[in-house]
Amino acid sequence: MSRKIIIDTDPGIDDAMAIFLAFNAPTLDVLALTTTFGNVSVDLATKNALTLVEVAGVDVPVSRGVALPLVRKPLAAPDFVHGKDGFGNINYPAPKCQAIERNAAQTIVDLVHQYPNEITIVALGPLGNLATALALDPSIAGLVHEVILMGGADTESGNVTPVAEANIINDPHAADIVFQANWQVTMVGLDVTHKVLIDDAFLENVRDNNTQCGDFLYQVTQFYFNFYRKEFSIDGCYVHDASTIVYAMAPDIFTTKPGRVRVAVDGVAIGQTIVAPLDKQYVVDHWDNVPASNICVDVDSPRLLQLMADTLTK
Amino acid sequence: MSRKIIIDTDPGIDDAMAIFLAFNAPTLDVLALTTTFGNVSVDLATKNALTLVEVAGVDVPVSRGVALPLVRKPLAAPDFVHGKDGFGNINYPAPKCQAIERNAAQTIVDLVHQYPNEITIVALGPLGNLATALALDPSIAGLVHEVILMGGADTESGNVTPVAEANIINDPHAADIVFQANWQVTMVGLDVTHKVLIDDAFLENVRDNNTQCGDFLYQVTQFYFNFYRKEFSIDGCYVHDASTIVYAMAPDIFTTKPGRVRVAVDGVAIGQTIVAPLDKQYVVDHWDNVPASNICVDVDSPRLLQLMADTLTK
Repeated sequence: MSRKIIIDTDPGIDDAMAIFLAFNAPTLDVLALTTTFGNVSVDLATKNALTLVEVAGVDVPVSRGVALPLVRKPLAAPDFVHGKDGFGNINYPAPKCQAIERNAAQTIVDLVHQYPNEITIVALGPLGNLATALALDPSIAGLVHEVILMGGADTESGNVTPVAEANIINDPHAADIVFQANWQVTMVGLDVTHKVLIDDAFLENVRDNNTQCGDFLYQVTQFYFNFYRKEFSIDGCYVHDASTIVYAMAPDIFTTKPGRVRVAVDGVAIGQTIVAPLDKQYVVDHWDNVPASNICVDVDSPRLLQLMADTLTK
Repeated sequence: MSRKIIIDTDPGIDDAMAIFLAFNAPTLDVLALTTTFGNVSVDLATKNALTLVEVAGVDVPVSRGVALPLVRKPLAAPDFVHGKDGFGNINYPAPKCQAIERNAAQTIVDLVHQYPNEITIVALGPLGNLATALALDPSIAGLVHEVILMGGADTESGNVTPVAEANIINDPHAADIVFQANWQVTMVGLDVTHKVLIDDAFLENVRDNNTQCGDFLYQVTQFYFNFYRKEFSIDGCYVHDASTIVYAMAPDIFTTKPGRVRVAVDGVAIGQTIVAPLDKQYVVDHWDNVPASNICVDVDSPRLLQLMADTLTK
C-alpha cells in the first residue's frame, strides 16, 4: 500500500531534492505538485515544478497556486540561496509540458474529496494554498489523512529572525490558519532539520547512481552548497524539505511531542511558531481550542540519510 | 565601596525577600524604593514598601510610581500568588511612615543626576517607572551605571504564556523601551531564576537568625510556598527577585551572554523577550541599532543560596 500525497512546493533547490526523493519512494504515490511563491515567484515555482516532472520522467500534474501572502507584504525572494532561476542559475531549458487549468487550492479540495481520508499533504513552502483550500471548503479538514509541513521552530532559533523560520514568516496568517484547523498537522521544523546535513560525497553518490535525476540534482545543489559555505561555514547543507518527505515515508525515524501551535502574525515576533503543551491553561486564551499538532523534536539523522541515499540511488 | 542602588518594586512576597536582602547587604546602599503596579496595585505596593522599611528599621525613602501599563490593558493582579494584601494575607498592621511627595520616575531622574554614573537601578516589577523616567529625561540613559532587571526569558519557557514572563507581559511597551535605551541592561530572567529554589529549611534558618526581618519573611512566604505546592508540586519556591539583588552583589555568580533584546508588544507573542545575537544581520530591521544587553544564561545556584543565607542571617 503506497501513501497518496500532494506536494505543495516552491522549487527551490531543496524542494528539487525532496520531490525527486518522493518520486523515487515506492511507498509514496505523488498525485500532484501544487505550487506557491516562496523561494521564488509562483510563476517560476510552477515552471520549475514542471521541469522536475520532466527530468524525472513521471506523469504528475502540476497546479499553479498563490502568488502572494494572505495579509502581509511579501518578502523578497531569496535568490542568494536558490539563484535567480530557483535552480542555482544552471540555465536549464524551459519545460515542454504545462500546468493544469485548475488552481492549487481547488486541486487540493478535489483530490481530498476524490480520496477521502487517504490524502497526505506535504507542504514544503509558505502555506497559502492550504489556507485557501480550507477557505474554499472547510470540510476538507476532516477528510485529509495528515498535513506534514516543513516550517517553524520550537526551541531552535529561527533562520530569518531570531524566532522565525522562512516558510512561516513568508505567510504567517496562512500558517496560523493551518495550525488551528481541525486536521492532523505534523511540524517538521528547524528543531530537526538543523540536525540533518548532507555533504558533497552524498550528492556524488546520487549523481553517479541515479541516471534519471542525479546529474540535475548535483548541478543545482552546487549554488546551495556555496551559500552554506559563505553563510554558515558548513561544507554541505541542511536537509529541510527532503526531511519532510522522509517523515511521510518513515515517521518512526523522528521523535515527536504533542503541542498546540499559534503563529505570531505581527510585531517583532512575526513568523514565530509558539508551541504550548497540551496540559497547561493560560490567563490568555490564544491556545484554547487549538488542536494538538505533532511537533518533531528529534531525528535519527544517520537513518534518515541512509533511507534518502537508498531511495535516490536504487 | 558600596554600590548605590534604587529598587523599583511591586511588593509582593519575593520582593520582600529581595528588599530585605538588599538592606542587609554591606556592599549595597539602597537610596530609594520606587513602586509600581504588578504583583499588586501601586497603592498597595507603596503601602507594602513602607511596611518593609519599617520592619527592617531602615531610613529609605519610598516613592510612588505608575499605576497602569503604558499602552496595554492591565492584567488582573495575581492575588492567588501573593495574597490579596500582597503579603500572603497575614493582615500586618498599616505602616506609620509615608511615601515622599516626588513620583517614582522623577525620583529616579533626580538621583541619577545627583550621583552621575554611580546609580544601579534594580527593577523587580513591570518597567513603567524606568520607561517614564527615560521619557522625562532621556539623558539619564548615559548617566546610569547599570539597570539590572528581573524579567523575561531567552530559551526558557514563559510563566504567563508559553513565551512570556510576568513582569514583561504586564507592560511590554515599557520593557521594549528599556531594552532599546542606551544604557547597560542586565536581564535576570527565568533562564536563571528557575534554577534557584529555596525550601522551608532555608526560611527557618532566616527566621531563627534574623531578629529584625526573619519572622515577617517566614510568615509572608507561607502563602507563596502553598501556591508553588499547588501549581508546580514544588516544596519551596523559585527565587526570582532576590536573584536579581544577588546579581548586584556578586555578578560573577552568573554566566552571561551579550544579546540584543526586543519585546513583542502584541499578538500571541505579547510579552516575549526575543534575544538576537550581536553578530547576525536579519532581513527585518527590528534588531538594528539595539544596544547589547547582558543576558543571564546560567547561575551557580549553591553559591547564590549561600550568599543569600549568609547575608540575611549575619
